[in-house]
Amino acid sequence: MMSIPRDNETTFLLSGWKNRIEIAIEQRLPPANTKPVRLHQAMRYATLNGGKRVRGLLVYASGYLLGAPDELLDTPAAAIEAIQCFSLIHDDLPALDNDDIRRGKPSCHKAFDEATAILAGDALQMFAFEQISTSSHSEAQRLAMIKILAEDSGSVGMIGGGAWELDISGKKVSWKELENLHWLKCGKLIHASVLLGAYGAKVPNADILARLEKYAYGLGIGYQIGNDILDGMGEFEFLGKSPRSDQQVGRTTFFTEFEVEKAKNRMVELFDSSINALDGLQRAEPLRQIANQVKERSLSVF
Amino acid sequence: MMSIPRDNETTFLLSGWKNRIEIAIEQRLPPANTKPVRLHQAMRYATLNGGKRVRGLLVYASGYLLGAPDELLDTPAAAIEAIQCFSLIHDDLPALDNDDIRRGKPSCHKAFDEATAILAGDALQMFAFEQISTSSHSEAQRLAMIKILAEDSGSVGMIGGGAWELDISGKKVSWKELENLHWLKCGKLIHASVLLGAYGAKVPNADILARLEKYAYGLGIGYQIGNDILDGMGEFEFLGKSPRSDQQVGRTTFFTEFEVEKAKNRMVELFDSSINALDGLQRAEPLRQIANQVKERSLSVF
Repeated sequence: MMSIPRDNETTFLLSGWKNRIEIAIEQRLPPANTKPVRLHQAMRYATLNGGKRVRGLLVYASGYLLGAPDELLDTPAAAIEAIQCFSLIHDDLPALDNDDIRRGKPSCHKAFDEATAILAGDALQMFAFEQISTSSHSEAQRLAMIKILAEDSGSVGMIGGGAWELDISGKKVSWKELENLHWLKCGKLIHASVLLGAYGAKVPNADILARLEKYAYGLGIGYQIGNDILDGMGEFEFLGKSPRSDQQVGRTTFFTEFEVEKAKNRMVELFDSSINALDGLQRAEPLRQIANQVKERSLSVF
Repeated sequence: MMSIPRDNETTFLLSGWKNRIEIAIEQRLPPANTKPVRLHQAMRYATLNGGKRVRGLLVYASGYLLGAPDELLDTPAAAIEAIQCFSLIHDDLPALDNDDIRRGKPSCHKAFDEATAILAGDALQMFAFEQISTSSHSEAQRLAMIKILAEDSGSVGMIGGGAWELDISGKKVSWKELENLHWLKCGKLIHASVLLGAYGAKVPNADILARLEKYAYGLGIGYQIGNDILDGMGEFEFLGKSPRSDQQVGRTTFFTEFEVEKAKNRMVELFDSSINALDGLQRAEPLRQIANQVKERSLSVF
């Protein structure tokens, strides 16, 4: 049998993991006929809706780096995607971004109603922690994953990033402040994804941890600069949601505040530093390919 | 020195614990000047606002039953109160109960804004899990507490109870369904409080666990029947919020659906079964007194 060329092999891995994520979420969520029915329908609607699953893929790719079998990564991957989907449900609410469309379909509060959407987002947070607390990992691994997920999602993590964005809405900010904000808003959950994969495999050593931190930092902020640019320059068909939503809600972004060339250059620099952090590591191809794919997507409008 | 009479001793314990709860929350929340400032202000506003702290008190009282020093119970008490306060913030939102007043003051979305209130509620959930994951308990105790808190708060717990209530809004329901709903909506977090105290002390034995489960069931549902009655018959000054809010939002409650005498009788029966579950136990006086206080408050309108 011919060996599969390296790039195809990685593509094959990633595509398998994407399938695993869908199954992992689907099997772990309560069935749609569980009482209260409307809530469980909304939770499933908002999670099983064709996301790109970048964060879930990072869990598998990072665990793969450390030699973990996929089975060990299903629960942390489902958990991180539940947190990501909760944040999208709440971000889309009228009081926040007021987005009616998500991933090409009505957002949760449009498909259901605002009250159900708020509660579905809340319940997905609980779901994530419940899943990790009962996973098959060692007690130390489970507690490390719970701590990372709670910190990186919390008031000085992802949720804090959303609130910080409200604070500066319509104001002039420095490049540095916007990068710090984006690190919270987008970077921290990327960080959590990478670390959940690592701790889901085993407790990582200091060198690996430092490299993964650097990988997450570059990818996390680069990703958000890319989102700003795509919102400013992309089209509906590509985004699966309305472009120019940032301007509509008066959001302060890299695209609205700075020269697009400057944003693009810094973004590329961040992606490259992310990828370079993996230099010399075995089994790092999936992490590298994910960063390259996010980079390519972010550059696709140029 | 004269020994303090038994009842006074318990009152003294409870009042000391109430102070501990305020300090435990205050010291564990990020300072109000932490970025993003408005979010952290909102989190503190909505948690340090003079609640009755029944759930936090249950943590100490249950831990006391099992002989734990108070220090071991500060973190689970702060965590359960954070979850309770998150649920009140989200319940008060315009899309849910649309309550402008909470504990005699503007509710969080009125004092701040809807977006900040949604995010503050989200961040308090993360805060609760982060706190327990890094507490000084054994790994097994921490994981047990996290599992209980996530399950009892989640889609088949407290949050599920809120959603179930939306499902039946304006509909006729059986007594049994309403009790099941109230077990989720109010009872499950009472259950979590009692069990967090127990597991915060040590892993409880089967007899103690069965008694605590029975105590939580009677108190949890009795408490919610009491809330229904107080909403229907109480006054603003007593409640610290607008009465008759249930009717205003078309909620189906024990008060709106059934004879008040029948509701009252079942409530008393539940409280009594709760208290009786503690028969013969040493160090159960605080748990008994909490149930008696909730019972008295619920009966105060008759």
